[in-house]
Amino acid sequence: MEKKAYLDNVASTPVDNRVLEAMQPYYRELFGNPVSFHQWGEQTADAIENAREQVAKLINGLAEEIVFTSCGTESNSMAIKGLAIRNQSRGKHIVVSAIEHFSVLHPIRTLGKMGFEICSVPVDSNGVVDPDELAKCLRPDTVLVSIMHANSEVGTIQPMQEIAAVVKRSGALFHTDAVASTGIIPVDVNRMGVDALSLAGNQFHGPQGSGALWLRRNTSIAPLLEGGIQEADVRSGTHNVPAIVGLGKAAELAREEMEQRVEKVKLLREKLIEGVLGTISNSILTGHRKNRLPGNASFCIEFIEGEAMLAYLASEGVAAASGSACTAKYLKSSHVLNAMGIDAAIAQGSLLFTLGHENTDKDVDLVLKVLPPIVDRLRQMSPLYAKFIKKEA
Amino acid sequence: MEKKAYLDNVASTPVDNRVLEAMQPYYRELFGNPVSFHQWGEQTADAIENAREQVAKLINGLAEEIVFTSCGTESNSMAIKGLAIRNQSRGKHIVVSAIEHFSVLHPIRTLGKMGFEICSVPVDSNGVVDPDELAKCLRPDTVLVSIMHANSEVGTIQPMQEIAAVVKRSGALFHTDAVASTGIIPVDVNRMGVDALSLAGNQFHGPQGSGALWLRRNTSIAPLLEGGIQEADVRSGTHNVPAIVGLGKAAELAREEMEQRVEKVKLLREKLIEGVLGTISNSILTGHRKNRLPGNASFCIEFIEGEAMLAYLASEGVAAASGSACTAKYLKSSHVLNAMGIDAAIAQGSLLFTLGHENTDKDVDLVLKVLPPIVDRLRQMSPLYAKFIKKEA
Repeated sequence: MEKKAYLDNVASTPVDNRVLEAMQPYYRELFGNPVSFHQWGEQTADAIENAREQVAKLINGLAEEIVFTSCGTESNSMAIKGLAIRNQSRGKHIVVSAIEHFSVLHPIRTLGKMGFEICSVPVDSNGVVDPDELAKCLRPDTVLVSIMHANSEVGTIQPMQEIAAVVKRSGALFHTDAVASTGIIPVDVNRMGVDALSLAGNQFHGPQGSGALWLRRNTSIAPLLEGGIQEADVRSGTHNVPAIVGLGKAAELAREEMEQRVEKVKLLREKLIEGVLGTISNSILTGHRKNRLPGNASFCIEFIEGEAMLAYLASEGVAAASGSACTAKYLKSSHVLNAMGIDAAIAQGSLLFTLGHENTDKDVDLVLKVLPPIVDRLRQMSPLYAKFIKKEA
Repeated sequence: MEKKAYLDNVASTPVDNRVLEAMQPYYRELFGNPVSFHQWGEQTADAIENAREQVAKLINGLAEEIVFTSCGTESNSMAIKGLAIRNQSRGKHIVVSAIEHFSVLHPIRTLGKMGFEICSVPVDSNGVVDPDELAKCLRPDTVLVSIMHANSEVGTIQPMQEIAAVVKRSGALFHTDAVASTGIIPVDVNRMGVDALSLAGNQFHGPQGSGALWLRRNTSIAPLLEGGIQEADVRSGTHNVPAIVGLGKAAELAREEMEQRVEKVKLLREKLIEGVLGTISNSILTGHRKNRLPGNASFCIEFIEGEAMLAYLASEGVAAASGSACTAKYLKSSHVLNAMGIDAAIAQGSLLFTLGHENTDKDVDLVLKVLPPIVDRLRQMSPLYAKFIKKEA
């Protein structure tokens, strides 16, 4: 089947050609192990330190605070387990929002089995964490709070400064999963007031297999991958030099071009949102109307299963998602939509388009052309819809 | 400084051009997330399954038994912690050889802090584990045994079948770190009789950031990276598709070309070993004379610090190592040489050349030309050598 329009940038983005170009020499010409004692190693060590600067600059951190990892999930697993376990002398209580990604929730569940207590902070119908609700969860023995910067499924951006102010008062460590936001919207670790931040390169046109954990200086963490001396002893394993170089270059480009990208993507998103809500009855936008990721257009289309829409869209050459890619094949309704109080039946019709700056008007036009007839066709097969129509009539 | 001869293949190998070519389409054209519900995802999912077959075939395992990871260290960390923790109902006793890589020893040390008991099996002067010594360590509550296939520092290959026979009698799980051997010499998980095996692509001309853990069917393991549904739930995180494709291709090439590669590399190694031992007094070969990795030529050059030789070699454009790259900058004497009973003073003069099939006679000739004068110069600065000469005279 022909591929026509890719609107699933949250699942992974195509690597920018300039990023690819930067990576190219590091496979054969400059392939040395950066911890080795010779020119081959020194050259790649320099490349890594350059990338560290580039990534640090994107988030207003220090180069020495960047730990390179293999993906966003590793950054989250490392942060959650590593911070909680290493700092448990403070206490074994963890606070988390109800709408975190599973790469945060599952490590926390594991800590739960190890004797940690978990408090889950609810969100409002827009997916926003209420700082007052958060304050109620915090205790003197809270060791770690993890609240994501932006939600990948519904796009909602959290009021990080307000949240940080509450966390700081408690003295707990504050981690944020900023995988969905870093490289896309401004991220400033100091303005945010966090102690640790996860990011991933494949979210902003860097390579798959690239990620980082920013860790505020003097923050103690237990390593997840152990053995060597890489990354100041907190993340062992031979460096993936091309991926790190690519992450650095992607960070530089994201910083330089962020404003234009956001502007372009927002226009496309608004056109898509208005088009969908205007032409498809019983459809709602999920997430915050205004404080949302520029490329996120997430809907619930009533009386239909999200997966059925995805299949029909795919047959038209359109890539979209229904909930997180990481759980796509589970066919469960989204814990994010549940937490936002969206009815389980409606949440089944979750449909997520994520735009990137490589998308064009043509892509949006295609969706707006093919989606309404797909919805019509699927609703004609839906007994629930038949019942609804009968009632309406 | 000009780079002339790379003899540090154990630290990392250049990526084969055919591997690079195979990876190329997966950055921009085929960049989809393999767990997504559309063509972009299906294409990369197919590519991953193809790579899984290629890797499985290299080690005579089943495709479904391959878990892709980000590097050898992750494979080892995951195997050690994941197997011991998940199967601790059998007991909390772990057996390991004294010469394992730190990516095995450090996770085991962490388990030690969690209440596991560790037994370290000694090796003989060739670095070989004695199955009888191993048998003495085993107990009914031994949950896991981890013995490496081949040692990256001294090249010694273990008698895996004999070792496995002993382990099997105990009923413990048997993991082997085969990072230094897979793709270089024949590895057959069934002949070896192991339950889990770690491998890494950058050891055999695949990309950095590629690794796998082979896990025998029905072996239960606790995941290290948690969150998604990737890799049958045991290793979450967005797949690094280009790296996985590259690992698969490198595995295919290694299998097809292994015989010629080994033959070529062994000839170079023998020339290098004979040249060094023949021209440099008070030098010894470390590791087993016969049962060693084809590309490994590891020496101790008495009265000199290994690092000083590396610096001089680097100034001649030659890349070598002194102990493991992962600890290169620690300047400690090698725990491997210590375990083999080599005097600490002699172990300081550790010098490791690792050849790959891209090396040529010219590379070996260069080493044999530049090394003896380097050794002479350094020894002239050595008070210990002066004392020795005086005694000899």
